[in-house]
Amino acid sequence: MEYKEYVERWGMQEITVHGPSDGNPFQDYRLSGTFSGRSETVQTEGFYDGDGMYKIRFLPSFEGEYRFQLQGNFTEANREGKFCVTAPGEGNHGPVRVANTYHFAYEDGTPYYPIGTTCYVWELQSDERILQTLESLREARFNKIRFCIFPKHYAYNLGEPRSYPYEGTPMDSSVLTDENFSQYTDKTEGNHWDFTRFNPKHFRHIENCIMELQKLGIEADIIVMHPYDRWGFSNMTKEQDDFCWNYVIARFAAFRNVWWSLANEYDLLKHKTIADWERFAQIICKKDPYSHLRSVHNCHPFYDYKRPWVTHCSIQRQELYQTAEYTDQWRKAFGKPVVLDEICYEGNIQYAWGNITAQEMVRRFWEAACRGGYPGHGETYLNADNVLWWSHGGKLRGESWERFGFLLDLLKETPGLGLAPYEKRWDCVCAVPEDEWRREVKSYYLIYYSFMQPSFREFYFDDETEFEIEVIDTWNMTIEKQGTGKGRFTVRLPGRQYMAVRLRTVKH
Amino acid sequence: MEYKEYVERWGMQEITVHGPSDGNPFQDYRLSGTFSGRSETVQTEGFYDGDGMYKIRFLPSFEGEYRFQLQGNFTEANREGKFCVTAPGEGNHGPVRVANTYHFAYEDGTPYYPIGTTCYVWELQSDERILQTLESLREARFNKIRFCIFPKHYAYNLGEPRSYPYEGTPMDSSVLTDENFSQYTDKTEGNHWDFTRFNPKHFRHIENCIMELQKLGIEADIIVMHPYDRWGFSNMTKEQDDFCWNYVIARFAAFRNVWWSLANEYDLLKHKTIADWERFAQIICKKDPYSHLRSVHNCHPFYDYKRPWVTHCSIQRQELYQTAEYTDQWRKAFGKPVVLDEICYEGNIQYAWGNITAQEMVRRFWEAACRGGYPGHGETYLNADNVLWWSHGGKLRGESWERFGFLLDLLKETPGLGLAPYEKRWDCVCAVPEDEWRREVKSYYLIYYSFMQPSFREFYFDDETEFEIEVIDTWNMTIEKQGTGKGRFTVRLPGRQYMAVRLRTVKH
Repeated sequence: MEYKEYVERWGMQEITVHGPSDGNPFQDYRLSGTFSGRSETVQTEGFYDGDGMYKIRFLPSFEGEYRFQLQGNFTEANREGKFCVTAPGEGNHGPVRVANTYHFAYEDGTPYYPIGTTCYVWELQSDERILQTLESLREARFNKIRFCIFPKHYAYNLGEPRSYPYEGTPMDSSVLTDENFSQYTDKTEGNHWDFTRFNPKHFRHIENCIMELQKLGIEADIIVMHPYDRWGFSNMTKEQDDFCWNYVIARFAAFRNVWWSLANEYDLLKHKTIADWERFAQIICKKDPYSHLRSVHNCHPFYDYKRPWVTHCSIQRQELYQTAEYTDQWRKAFGKPVVLDEICYEGNIQYAWGNITAQEMVRRFWEAACRGGYPGHGETYLNADNVLWWSHGGKLRGESWERFGFLLDLLKETPGLGLAPYEKRWDCVCAVPEDEWRREVKSYYLIYYSFMQPSFREFYFDDETEFEIEVIDTWNMTIEKQGTGKGRFTVRLPGRQYMAVRLRTVKH
Repeated sequence: MEYKEYVERWGMQEITVHGPSDGNPFQDYRLSGTFSGRSETVQTEGFYDGDGMYKIRFLPSFEGEYRFQLQGNFTEANREGKFCVTAPGEGNHGPVRVANTYHFAYEDGTPYYPIGTTCYVWELQSDERILQTLESLREARFNKIRFCIFPKHYAYNLGEPRSYPYEGTPMDSSVLTDENFSQYTDKTEGNHWDFTRFNPKHFRHIENCIMELQKLGIEADIIVMHPYDRWGFSNMTKEQDDFCWNYVIARFAAFRNVWWSLANEYDLLKHKTIADWERFAQIICKKDPYSHLRSVHNCHPFYDYKRPWVTHCSIQRQELYQTAEYTDQWRKAFGKPVVLDEICYEGNIQYAWGNITAQEMVRRFWEAACRGGYPGHGETYLNADNVLWWSHGGKLRGESWERFGFLLDLLKETPGLGLAPYEKRWDCVCAVPEDEWRREVKSYYLIYYSFMQPSFREFYFDDETEFEIEVIDTWNMTIEKQGTGKGRFTVRLPGRQYMAVRLRTVKH
């Protein structure tokens, strides 16, 4: 059978309806639809995209024929049709889901080990800068990026964004200086916005960026709300907030690589209460038919990650010295994947959240990974262009980013899905496959020595099992095979920091 | 007036009495004495030193004429005499005392900032090795050393000591290997000792070593008991223990540079209870007329440092990652000087307690010092001679030791006595003079950036006070003057780790 339209599984089917543009179409007109295939029926909502255009989007989870039926309160809205969903294309594994309690996998079952970075408003920079960021991302091995849909007002980031989410005019930013900017944070004076009229161009542009990330195999961990605001976007009414959430979900939910981060540093948003966050979560749960991953990121106190709607922890470090080291504790406390979205940034700015070394960043990554969690990267190096990766994207200037692909490749070799911390010794971190935790002898041990610099280590598991020995230099990214060991055996190490040992049972 | 004998203040007056050598002189004969000057009368006990010689020692705390009256249960014991105490010689400041709650000073009031190291049985090695250790100590700037008076049985230290504290013969150590040694720990089989007869040669030798340290201005932090034992010395009866304590105190108390460490890793001594430690403490308090500093060192749980007899905390790190960072907490908890005698050793052996880098060791020193505490050093580098500083002394092989003199010189510039942690910012460690803690504006701030690498920092105290700015590289041991600052001012930093800033008010 022939169809007019084909879309791949976990791709996006978008239907455009031309309709009225009188009054306030964002408020006055509604478009919704039902998409039915052999294995699912999905009800979803459309949105006004400006210029008399209404759109509705659908993310099919199965192959085969789908029929759709659209409704709305304007004549052109009521239509129906069909299309065919084909097999997913190369690199399309579906949305990321929680798997094996503490881990993630794409919907097709392929394990997904998040190696994330943060570029808060990379997509609100110039076209040239955005292309540069995408080029950097192509070269790096990140598979998740956190960014905001509202513009950001913060140190090193006082400029105007390329566009605003609403119709209107912003306050005059020429008054801002590095010294006085915080006095403008959370102020609304001087801004003129119509919070009932979105700026579709702003959102279309963000969608283009989400698609570019999708092509690179990168998950878009979208931060919807944040407190770094001088425009009043963090200080809207309940109705305005909810109106925004509905619009955002209608636009973004059908992108398979979208994650919902309700907020960055939710606890710094003074005008919001826990009841607000819970209400937003309810809206997402109700309106996102695809159950994208959901979390909310802290500054000081964690959000209650035990709430049923929270799919994973999205943690910012709570103290100066340790973060990754608490991963196992947090796994136990919350029983969900532990994603450490902010563990300080590699860089040299004045603030301690942005001035750790590349070595320490890589150490925190390994420390977290070997404890069964997922750390995140960011970069804050001062430079003449005043373009800091953490905020603007651009070029990667540090030395840690190059080393995460090596870790990712090792993580992908984990038998089953995901590593679990295993406390065999007090003076190292020992990871074993999550699925083998309860077995007496495991097939796989990944042991990390962090800042310590042993010249050798001794092992004993039992008298029979033979292990293939590999000495891993996590900084220099080398793996040295060192034969096999059985019974009591010694592994020679170089007496340097940042070493790991992998032991895998020899299959006879 | 002329005297036959002169001794300097805080020097040692030793009187030898020839007496009987029949029976068991250690048990059967007693010698005691009263030493009286214008400002003190001290009662103290003598000891048997072998070959029919009895000795009694006295540490005078004042200048001027002293008379003494000896008594004992043998004829020759009963004698009297006088001597003159002169002004202290160069470098003799008296015993170290607790001062200003959290700090130390010599009895003459000179501030004492402990920069300690650990060489557990350096004094039980060959003459050649001992000379080498003293040479290393002369070159380094340590002013405290921890060591044991009983021999040590432990990894990297399975050889025989140069002598034993008792008459008798030890077990055959030729059976020991790196693998099996721990099976012999705490065993008594094969040893033959007379716990009623000390080996005076053993103690005389240690005393010579204490005197050599004294000449170098180094405090002898003497560890009396420890669990690294294959000879039964950690497994004596109550009576044998007390007999030993009395002998040790009679011999060592009159050395001005002696500190009492009741034990190393007291909690690993299985045969001792808290009641035992408290009894030993009572013996020291009663029998040491000079009130030398007293503490007890932990492996896992701390001893209760709030006990009145404990003069200062003697802490071993309780976790892998942080120790120095808890200094301020422990100051608050115990209200006494916080000495961090074991914060891991610089080295590359297999155990995490002995394989941190020089950089991390120096970082821990600064971190502790700027929090108003006193860290300790040790070295455990593998080498062909199998001579590890931490156990045997010998040569210093690391890179941290060279950097402590620089810290010591800075500490000595503290106005008043001692630094206190001052929490002005969340992302650095800021020390101020203990005496200025409550002043609104201090005359002196020492700010340490630890593993962070800021390129600059901004300061504001008030509009009037002018500060002299110094940028300190704690690793490269440089101090760069950067002019003065007033009101809001910026300090340029090199974007490297291990930097500090010192701000001192300009006196007009």
